[in-house]
Amino acid sequence: MKINQNYGNLAESYLFSTIGKKVNAFTAAHPEREVIRLGIGDVTLPLARPVIEALHAATDEMAEKATFRGYGPDQGYDFLRTALQAEYARHGVALELDEIFVGDGAKSDVGNILELFDADNTVLVPDPVYPVYVDTNVMAGRRILYASATRENDFLPMPDACVRADIIYICSPNNPTGAAYTRAQLKAWVDYANENDAVLLFDAAYERFITEPDVPHSIFEIDGAKTCAIEFCSLSKTAGFTGTRCSYTVVPMALKRGGTKLNAMWLRRQTTKYNGVSYIVQRAAAAVFTDAGRQATGEAIAYYRANAAMIAAALNEAGVWYCGGKNSPYLWMECPGGMASWDFFDYLLEHAGVVGTPGAGFGARGEGYFRLTGFGDAQKTKRAAQKLREAAAALQSR
Amino acid sequence: MKINQNYGNLAESYLFSTIGKKVNAFTAAHPEREVIRLGIGDVTLPLARPVIEALHAATDEMAEKATFRGYGPDQGYDFLRTALQAEYARHGVALELDEIFVGDGAKSDVGNILELFDADNTVLVPDPVYPVYVDTNVMAGRRILYASATRENDFLPMPDACVRADIIYICSPNNPTGAAYTRAQLKAWVDYANENDAVLLFDAAYERFITEPDVPHSIFEIDGAKTCAIEFCSLSKTAGFTGTRCSYTVVPMALKRGGTKLNAMWLRRQTTKYNGVSYIVQRAAAAVFTDAGRQATGEAIAYYRANAAMIAAALNEAGVWYCGGKNSPYLWMECPGGMASWDFFDYLLEHAGVVGTPGAGFGARGEGYFRLTGFGDAQKTKRAAQKLREAAAALQSR
Repeated sequence: MKINQNYGNLAESYLFSTIGKKVNAFTAAHPEREVIRLGIGDVTLPLARPVIEALHAATDEMAEKATFRGYGPDQGYDFLRTALQAEYARHGVALELDEIFVGDGAKSDVGNILELFDADNTVLVPDPVYPVYVDTNVMAGRRILYASATRENDFLPMPDACVRADIIYICSPNNPTGAAYTRAQLKAWVDYANENDAVLLFDAAYERFITEPDVPHSIFEIDGAKTCAIEFCSLSKTAGFTGTRCSYTVVPMALKRGGTKLNAMWLRRQTTKYNGVSYIVQRAAAAVFTDAGRQATGEAIAYYRANAAMIAAALNEAGVWYCGGKNSPYLWMECPGGMASWDFFDYLLEHAGVVGTPGAGFGARGEGYFRLTGFGDAQKTKRAAQKLREAAAALQSR
Repeated sequence: MKINQNYGNLAESYLFSTIGKKVNAFTAAHPEREVIRLGIGDVTLPLARPVIEALHAATDEMAEKATFRGYGPDQGYDFLRTALQAEYARHGVALELDEIFVGDGAKSDVGNILELFDADNTVLVPDPVYPVYVDTNVMAGRRILYASATRENDFLPMPDACVRADIIYICSPNNPTGAAYTRAQLKAWVDYANENDAVLLFDAAYERFITEPDVPHSIFEIDGAKTCAIEFCSLSKTAGFTGTRCSYTVVPMALKRGGTKLNAMWLRRQTTKYNGVSYIVQRAAAAVFTDAGRQATGEAIAYYRANAAMIAAALNEAGVWYCGGKNSPYLWMECPGGMASWDFFDYLLEHAGVVGTPGAGFGARGEGYFRLTGFGDAQKTKRAAQKLREAAAALQSR
C-alpha cells in the first residue's frame, strides 16, 4: 500500500489556531476588557425570512409520502438551476441549464474540480491567497507559481507573458484583499488563458458585495470566457448560508481541453462521487432568488457593507492605506508605522481590544498587511472602528 | 493543459437509462397495464416524525441572531458525533470522537477517501459490484482486480492467498446481492488485510437491515479491524435520508500506512476540501438516534423488510434460487429457466408488468441474475410478488 506522498508536502496552517490562542491568553489576563473580533470571515445575521419559510415548507413536504423526495438529480434540481440561470441573465450572461451544477460549497467544488486535470500541470495563484487554492494542488503534486499582489499593482496582479501556467486562480472580489478586477483587467486574463490553453478557475463567492458598475459579477460577462473559465459561486456570503451549505459551479459547454468537454467530465465526476444537495436546502436556496428573498438578503448585505464603510472611514481618518471595502466585506490595510503583521495583531489586541487577521497568514506578500471584515455586529464594529482609528493614529505618530 | 486522461477509460453506464427507456416504451404501448417497480434503490416512506420536528426546530434556530449557526466544524458537530459514538457502543464498538467524520453521503466519502492513496495501488472489488467502486478508481488510473461472487460462494467471495491487493472493497450487507458476511468471514478479510498491508473500505450502508446475530453491523466488531479498515455508513437507508443527505465515516486512530495516520490525512482532506454538513441536517440526523427516532425509523425498516419477505416468499413458492432479503432490502434471484438477465427483464415487464434490475448491469458475474428490492409500496409489492411468482413458475415449466 502506497499512500499519497504529496500530503507530506503540505504546510501546517497555524493562522487561526494561533489567533485563537492569543485571544484566549489576552482574555484570561484581562477579563474586564472588551474584545471585538473584526477578523471573522463568517456571517453573523440569521437566515432571511423567505429562506426560513422555504425550509419549513420543504420539511413539511418531506413528512408526507405523496410529497417526500428521495434521491434528487446529482447536479441539482431544475427549480434551483432555473433560478440561477435567471440570476445570471440579470448580469447579461446566458447559460444553458446543464452548464450549472448545484453543490454544497464553493470550497468543495474548487477542490474537487482539480480531479479533471492531470497532476502534470502548472498552477498560478496570487500571493497573498486563500490557502485552499494552494493546499488542494499540493495534495495532487502540481507545480505552483505565485503572482505577486502588491500595493504597486493594487493587489490585482495581471498576466505576465513570461509566465506559462495551465490552471489559474482568480478570486474577485478577492479574499483576503477585498480588491476587485475591472472588466478590462479580466478581459486580459481571459485572453491570456485562451492564448495559452489555460483554464481560469474564477471564484465569485463575494460577487453580491460589488457596488461599482465596472466590476463584473461573473467572469462570463467577459467575451471569450466561455472557452477558458469555470466559475464558482456560493450562497454562503450572498445569503448567509455558511452553516446551511449551498453553492453553484458553472462549466460552459464551449470549454474544451485536450479535445474533451470539461462539462462532460465534471458531470461524470459529480454523478460518480456525489449525490447532490439536500432537497430542503435547495428549496431554501431557490427562495433567495425570489423578489422577497432578494430584498431580505440584500438588507443583510447592506448591513455588512455599512460595517465595512465604518472601518474604511476610520482608516481614512487615520491616513492608513488600504484596499477593499468597496466591492467586498474585506478591508486589507497596511500595518501602520511599517509594522510586521503579527506585531500589529499583538499591538491592536493589547491597545484596542480588536482582533484582525495578520496578512502574513495568507502568503509572503501579505507580510506588513492586515485583514479586517464587515461581518460583525454593527454596534461592536462602530466601537472597534473608533479604537482602530486611535491605535493607527498613535502608531503613525510614533 | 493536460486533462486527466483516465476519464477516457470510463465505461459509459446505460443500466438505468436503458431500463427507463424500456419502461417508457412499454407504458406507451400498453397505457392500460399497471407497471410496478421492484428495481428501485431509493426509499419511499417519508421522514420520521422526530426527524421532521428536529428540522423545524433547527430551522427556527437559524432564524434568530442569538441561535444562528454559521460555519460548523468541517468534520461534524459534536452533538451528532457523540450520538454516533453511542450508536457504535450499542454494537460493542468503542470509538473516539475524532475517529468519526460526518459527511453528506457515503458515495462522496467512498469516492473522496481514495485521494489518500497513491495511483500506484491495486484495487480488489467483488463482481458483481456497486459501479461507483470501479469508476472512482478508473478515474485515478488504478489497477482493478475482481473477486468473483457466484452462487458457489453464496455471492460472498473470500480472500485468495494468490491475489495481492492494496485497497479492498467490502459491502456487507451487499448491494446488489443482499448477501451478508458472517463474523468469521469478515475476520478472514481483516486478517488478510493486516497481513498484506492492505486497507479494507467497508461499506455498511445497509447495516440497519441486519436480522441475524452472526452478521456484524460494523467491521470494527472484528478484532484487528482498527489497524486495517475504514467504514462508511449513511442515514440514506437507515432513516430515509436519500434526499436529505447525511453520512458518517470512521477512520481509526490505529490505522497507519507508510508510517502515516490515515485519520490525520482524512482530517486534512476534509478541512481543505469540505465545509461540513448543513446544521439543520445534522440536527435531523441526531434525532434518528434518540429513542423516539430509533422507534420511528425502525418502523420504516420493518415495512421495507416485510416487502422483501413477500418477494422472498414468492420466489420460495416458485422454487427460484435467490440470496439476500434476510439482512438486506435487496434480493438477488437467479433468472428462471437459465435466462439472460436482460431477457428476463423484458419477459417480466411484458408478462407481469414488474420492473427489476438486470444483474448484468453490475458486472460480468451478474449475468443470469436479477435484483429486486423491498423499497416499494406494500400493496404494490404484494401484487408484484404474486405476478413474479406466476411468471417464474411459467418459465420454470417451459
